[in-house]
Amino acid sequence: MAQQIKCGVVGATGYAGYELARLLRKHPMVSESMLFRREESGAKTLDEIYPRSMNGRPTPLHAFSWEHVEKEKIDLLFLATPHETSWEMVPEGLKRGLKIIDLSGAWRLKNAVNREVYKLEENGTTGATMKQAVFGSPELHSDEIRGAKLVANPGCYSTSVILALAPLVKGGLIDVEAGIVCDCKSGVSGAGKAPSAKTHFVEVAENLSAYSVFGHRHTGEILEQLGIGAENLIFTPHLLPIPRGILSTIYVTLKEKTTAAGIEETLRNFYADSKCVRVFPYPQLPQIQDSLRTNYCDIGFALGPDGKKVILVSCLDNLIKGAAGQAVQNMNVMYGWAEQEGLN
Amino acid sequence: MAQQIKCGVVGATGYAGYELARLLRKHPMVSESMLFRREESGAKTLDEIYPRSMNGRPTPLHAFSWEHVEKEKIDLLFLATPHETSWEMVPEGLKRGLKIIDLSGAWRLKNAVNREVYKLEENGTTGATMKQAVFGSPELHSDEIRGAKLVANPGCYSTSVILALAPLVKGGLIDVEAGIVCDCKSGVSGAGKAPSAKTHFVEVAENLSAYSVFGHRHTGEILEQLGIGAENLIFTPHLLPIPRGILSTIYVTLKEKTTAAGIEETLRNFYADSKCVRVFPYPQLPQIQDSLRTNYCDIGFALGPDGKKVILVSCLDNLIKGAAGQAVQNMNVMYGWAEQEGLN
Amino acid sequence: MAQQIKCGVVGATGYAGYELARLLRKHPMVSESMLFRREESGAKTLDEIYPRSMNGRPTPLHAFSWEHVEKEKIDLLFLATPHETSWEMVPEGLKRGLKIIDLSGAWRLKNAVNREVYKLEENGTTGATMKQAVFGSPELHSDEIRGAKLVANPGCYSTSVILALAPLVKGGLIDVEAGIVCDCKSGVSGAGKAPSAKTHFVEVAENLSAYSVFGHRHTGEILEQLGIGAENLIFTPHLLPIPRGILSTIYVTLKEKTTAAGIEETLRNFYADSKCVRVFPYPQLPQIQDSLRTNYCDIGFALGPDGKKVILVSCLDNLIKGAAGQAVQNMNVMYGWAEQEGLN
Amino acid sequence: MAQQIKCGVVGATGYAGYELARLLRKHPMVSESMLFRREESGAKTLDEIYPRSMNGRPTPLHAFSWEHVEKEKIDLLFLATPHETSWEMVPEGLKRGLKIIDLSGAWRLKNAVNREVYKLEENGTTGATMKQAVFGSPELHSDEIRGAKLVANPGCYSTSVILALAPLVKGGLIDVEAGIVCDCKSGVSGAGKAPSAKTHFVEVAENLSAYSVFGHRHTGEILEQLGIGAENLIFTPHLLPIPRGILSTIYVTLKEKTTAAGIEETLRNFYADSKCVRVFPYPQLPQIQDSLRTNYCDIGFALGPDGKKVILVSCLDNLIKGAAGQAVQNMNVMYGWAEQEGLN
Repeated sequence: MAQQIKCGVVGATGYAGYELARLLRKHPMVSESMLFRREESGAKTLDEIYPRSMNGRPTPLHAFSWEHVEKEKIDLLFLATPHETSWEMVPEGLKRGLKIIDLSGAWRLKNAVNREVYKLEENGTTGATMKQAVFGSPELHSDEIRGAKLVANPGCYSTSVILALAPLVKGGLIDVEAGIVCDCKSGVSGAGKAPSAKTHFVEVAENLSAYSVFGHRHTGEILEQLGIGAENLIFTPHLLPIPRGILSTIYVTLKEKTTAAGIEETLRNFYADSKCVRVFPYPQLPQIQDSLRTNYCDIGFALGPDGKKVILVSCLDNLIKGAAGQAVQNMNVMYGWAEQEGLN
Repeated sequence: MAQQIKCGVVGATGYAGYELARLLRKHPMVSESMLFRREESGAKTLDEIYPRSMNGRPTPLHAFSWEHVEKEKIDLLFLATPHETSWEMVPEGLKRGLKIIDLSGAWRLKNAVNREVYKLEENGTTGATMKQAVFGSPELHSDEIRGAKLVANPGCYSTSVILALAPLVKGGLIDVEAGIVCDCKSGVSGAGKAPSAKTHFVEVAENLSAYSVFGHRHTGEILEQLGIGAENLIFTPHLLPIPRGILSTIYVTLKEKTTAAGIEETLRNFYADSKCVRVFPYPQLPQIQDSLRTNYCDIGFALGPDGKKVILVSCLDNLIKGAAGQAVQNMNVMYGWAEQEGLN
Repeated sequence: MAQQIKCGVVGATGYAGYELARLLRKHPMVSESMLFRREESGAKTLDEIYPRSMNGRPTPLHAFSWEHVEKEKIDLLFLATPHETSWEMVPEGLKRGLKIIDLSGAWRLKNAVNREVYKLEENGTTGATMKQAVFGSPELHSDEIRGAKLVANPGCYSTSVILALAPLVKGGLIDVEAGIVCDCKSGVSGAGKAPSAKTHFVEVAENLSAYSVFGHRHTGEILEQLGIGAENLIFTPHLLPIPRGILSTIYVTLKEKTTAAGIEETLRNFYADSKCVRVFPYPQLPQIQDSLRTNYCDIGFALGPDGKKVILVSCLDNLIKGAAGQAVQNMNVMYGWAEQEGLN
Repeated sequence: MAQQIKCGVVGATGYAGYELARLLRKHPMVSESMLFRREESGAKTLDEIYPRSMNGRPTPLHAFSWEHVEKEKIDLLFLATPHETSWEMVPEGLKRGLKIIDLSGAWRLKNAVNREVYKLEENGTTGATMKQAVFGSPELHSDEIRGAKLVANPGCYSTSVILALAPLVKGGLIDVEAGIVCDCKSGVSGAGKAPSAKTHFVEVAENLSAYSVFGHRHTGEILEQLGIGAENLIFTPHLLPIPRGILSTIYVTLKEKTTAAGIEETLRNFYADSKCVRVFPYPQLPQIQDSLRTNYCDIGFALGPDGKKVILVSCLDNLIKGAAGQAVQNMNVMYGWAEQEGLN
C-alpha cells in the first residue's frame, strides 16, 4: 500500500474549507488533516461552527502558524484563504518545503493583465513563485500537476466553462471569431460565508440577478486556459436563490456544419480517461441537482437546426468540483493515486 | 365619467386566471367580472381554491356557457384557457359580438410555419379570424389594439425579450446577422397549475434546468414582432426554483460602436410614453424582485469594452406583465382608458 | 371629505419602514409622507435601495431632524426604529405635539419585569410617557387607540398569538392552568435587514431552527394582553426558509367539552366587526400563502376527539399585519377612518 | 471477513427507494443489490430517472417477480412500496424464506385500532405475519431485530418523535397526564414522488401549512412505542418549503423539578451505545441542516424556568434516518454488523 500523507487546511471554517475538511477526513490516503483558522482566537473545534460535522470525536481547530505546520510534519497544505492571504503565504510555504494547493485566485493567472483584478503586489519572489504554479484542472494538466509543488485550484465558474468548452476549442471546431457567450448561474455559497446584503436571505430568495457583467474575476482563467482573446468571450454570472450549484449555458458557433453524434463523440473522446466529467447522452441536458454533492462536472449539449449553433450546458457543485473536491482530485494526481480517490 | 364595462374570465382557476380575477375586481372601470371555469362541475367559488382571495363576499365560479355570457351582457371576455380551447372559442365569441383578449398562444402568430408548434387545425373561419387578431403588446401596437375586437395577449418570455430588444432592433442599431442570444429564466408558475414531475417541489428546489432548447413555442412571437429570421435568434428557457418572475439576459452586437449614454437614450426615447416599462439608469440592472407583483417590464443593460457588445437584462412578473396585467393593460388601451388603470 | 394628514416615517429603509412608505403613498387620507433615515448620510432616495419602488418620481429620503419634522408640519410620525431609538425619540416627539405610532417593542409593555428584556433606562419622563402608550391592537383596543397620542404597534409574533387566543381566553373558555403552547414559525424578514450569520441565505435555506426558546421578547406582550401568568405560557419561535409570513400553531385545553360549531361561533362573534381578521370555516386551516401581502390575520382551528383539546392556527404577513399594515390600521382608528382604509 | 449478502429493493424509483439503492451500492457487506420497479414496463435503468446516479455503469431496473428474486438468490428484500402492496407481498416473501425490511406503514402497528387508518384487509395469514413483525427502531429493539425475519421500518415523523421522547418516557420522568405536544415539520419529499397539488412547487414555496391535524397515520406508532394513551398525545405535522428534513418540537412536563444537567445525562445514558443518535450539549439545539444527508437523529432540549417544562427538539433527514438509512441500519443489526456500517 502506498504511503499515507498528512495534510493541513488553512481557512477550514469557510464553506470550501469545511468541505475540504470533510473530504480529507474520510480520504484513505490521508493519515491526518490538521485544520487551521486564520484568526488568533475563535472556535476551538469545527463542531462549534458546523454541528453537522459532529461524529463523537470533536475536530480541533488550531490558530495557524508556520511553526505548528512544521512541528506536525505536514506534507501538503490546502489554502482556503482570501487571495491576498494566499499571495503572502504561498512563497513562504514553498520555501519551507511544503506542497501547496491554493483555492484562491492568486496563483491562477499567468498574464499580468488578467491578474490586475486581484490588485496583488508583485515582487521578485512572487514572479518566481508564479512560474512554479500549475493551473489545477486535472482534465487538462494532469502531467504538470503530477510534479507540481504549487497547484492553483481553478475557480468554480471557470471550471464549469473551461471543461465544457475545452473539447471543442482545443479540437479547433469552434468559430471563435463569431463569439462565445457564457451565461452562468451560481448558488449563494459561491459568495462566501461572510454575511452581506448580497447574501441576505430576503434579498436572494425569490430573486435572480446578473452581476459583475463584463468584469468578473474568473474571466482571465477562461481566456488563458482556452487560449482565446478577451474580445471573443462574454461571461455573465447570475446569483441563483439556491445554496449551491452552478449551471453554465454556453453559446458557440462551429466552423463547419456537424451532427449531434459528431459533437458527442468529440466530447466523449476528450474525456475518455476522465473519471470526474460526465458527458450526457444527446439530447439529455444536465441539471444542477444531478451534480450536487458530487465531484462531477456534467456536460450536455443541444445542436441548432443549422448544424452549427451549439449550446453547451455544464453543471457542477461549486463547493466540490468547483473547489474542495477538485482540490482533492489535484492531490490525488500529485501523489499518483486514483483520480477520484476519496471522492465517491 | 366614462362608461364602465362588464367582463368575463374563462379559466379563472389557473394562475393567470386568478390574477386576472384579482385585478379586475379592483379595476375602477369594470362594473363586474364574471368568473367561469371550463368544467361542468367543480368549485363553486374562487375562495375554495384560493383562500387568500376571501374578503367577506365569496366570488362565485360559474360553469362556462355562451348562453350565460349572453344573458349577463358581458362586453369583454378574457380567455385564460389552453390554446386548443381558445382556438375553438374565439370565432364563436366574435360572432356573438364580444370583444376578446386571449391569453393563450393560439392567435399570436401570423406566420403559419411558426404556428405549427401549436398543432391547430385551420379552416376558413380561423383564417378570417386570424386576420382580425392584434398582437397585444401595448408598447408596440397601441393604435391597432385601440380598435381591435380580438387581442392576442403575448407570451411571458416573449414579452420580456421583445420589449428589451424592440428599441435597438427597430432603431436599426443591432447587427442581426451577428446573432441574438436570449438566455431566459422563469419561475415555476409559468408551467401552469397542473401538477407534473416538472413542477414537483423536490424536482425544482435546489435546481436549475434548461428546457425546450431550440424549440420553445414563444420563439415565433419574438421573430414576428422583431422581424428577424429564425437563423439569427437563439432563445433558451430555464426553470428557476422560484414561484414567479422572469429574467432574460440578451446578448447582441451593435452595428456601430456606441456609448452607454447613447443606448440609454435610445431606450428612454422609445419608452418615453410607456407607463409600464421602466428603463434602469446605466449601469444598474433590474433583478426579478424589482418587478414582482407589478405590471412593469424592467430593462437595463451593460456595454462591453468594445462599445459594440450589449447585454440587455429585462425582468417582469410572468403572471402580471407576462399575462394578466398585460391583458388588463390591453383592455385599458382598447377602451381608451389610462394605460396603467387598475394596475398600480 | 375628511381632512387629509401629513405623515413621517423614521427608519424608512428597513423592511417594515419600506412597507409603511409603500402603504402610505397610496393611502387616500395621507396627503404626503416624508421618509427619514436615521443616519446623517446615505441614500438620497428610496429607489436607490428598493428599485422596485421606482414609479417615475423618485421618493426622497431625508436625514431625520426634529426641525425638519416641525417645518414640514407633520401630524403623525411612524417610528420604524430600534427600541433604544424609539425610547429616546418618543417623549421628545410627544412634547412637540406629534402623534406617534411606534413599531418597536419599547412602549408595548406596562409591566416593568416584562420590559427588562429590552434593557431600557427608565426615568421620570419615560414613566409618564409609558402611561400614555396604548397597545396598538385595533381588534382589542380600538376605543383607547381612537384617542391615543402614542400607539405601541404590537410585535409580529404576538399579533398572531394574541388574535388567535383572545376570543377563547377572554371568553373564559380556556383551562389556562393546563398550559398554552404556542409553536410559532416566521420568515426571515422578521429578523431585519442587517446582514448576519442568522440571515445568510446558505444558513437559512433548506433549514428550520428553533431560537430564543423560553426567552423571546414578544412573550411579555402575549402575557399582558391575555392576562395570563408566565407559568402558563410557552412560546417557541422558529426561523422558516421563506422571506416573510408567520404561522402559529397554538395548543390549548378547554374547560368544558365543546363542539367545533361552538368554537367557530365564538371566534366569529368576537371578530364580527373586525375587517382585518378572517375566521376560516371549520375544518379549513389557514396557510401562510393565504395572508401574504395582506393585512389579514387568518385564524382556523381543529378540535380533538375529546372535545376539549383545541389547536388554533393563525397566519399573517409579519411585515403587513405584523408591522406596517397594522400601523396603518392603527392610524385609521386614531383618525376615525375606516379600519381597512388604504389596506386592500 | 463476514459473509456478504445479496439484496433486492422493490420500489427503487421512489425517493426512499432511490436512497436505498444509493446506500446499498456502497455498502461493504452487500455483494449486489437488485433494483425492482413494481410496474411491468418503464425505465430500464435507474440512471434514466435519476441522472445524478450515473457513474459509468448503468444500474438496471427490473420488473418485479418472485421468480426473479428466487433465481437471483436474494437474501434480504427491502420493500419501498405503498402499504397495500407491502401488505400483500410480505407473507409471500416470508413463505419463500426471504428476510424482509418493509418501509411502509403496513406492519408497524400491533394494535388493530391503530391500524384502521391503513384500511388493510386482515386474514389468518396477515395475523400470523404481524406477530413476526418487529418495529425497526434499532435504538429501542436491537435484540428483537437481530433475530427478525420481518422488520417494519418506522415512519419518518415517528422516528423523530419516538427517539426524542423515549429516554424521558421510559425513564418515567414525564408527567404523561399533563399531555405531550409534538409540533412536527417536514420537507416535501415526505409526501412522495407522485405529483399532486400538495407537492406543486408554487403551492409549497413561500408557504407553511399544518395538515392531518388530529389524524396522521404515524400517531399509532408513537403511542405503541412509547406506551402512552391517545388522550395524552397531540401530534401535528406541517409541510415545510424544503425538499427534505424533519424538525420536531416536543413539549412535555416532568413529574419532578430537574436540572438541565440531569436531563442531558438521562439522554446521554440512554443513547450511550447508539451510533446514530447525537445528543446536543445543552443549551444547543439541532437544526434541520445538521442532520441532512446523514443517518443521525439529532436531539437537544431546553428547560423552562420552573425546572419542569421541557422542550425537546429533534431533527433528522426523512429519507435517511427516517427511511432508507434506518432500513440499512436495521439490516446491519439483523446481520450482526456494526450499526452504522455503510452509513457514514
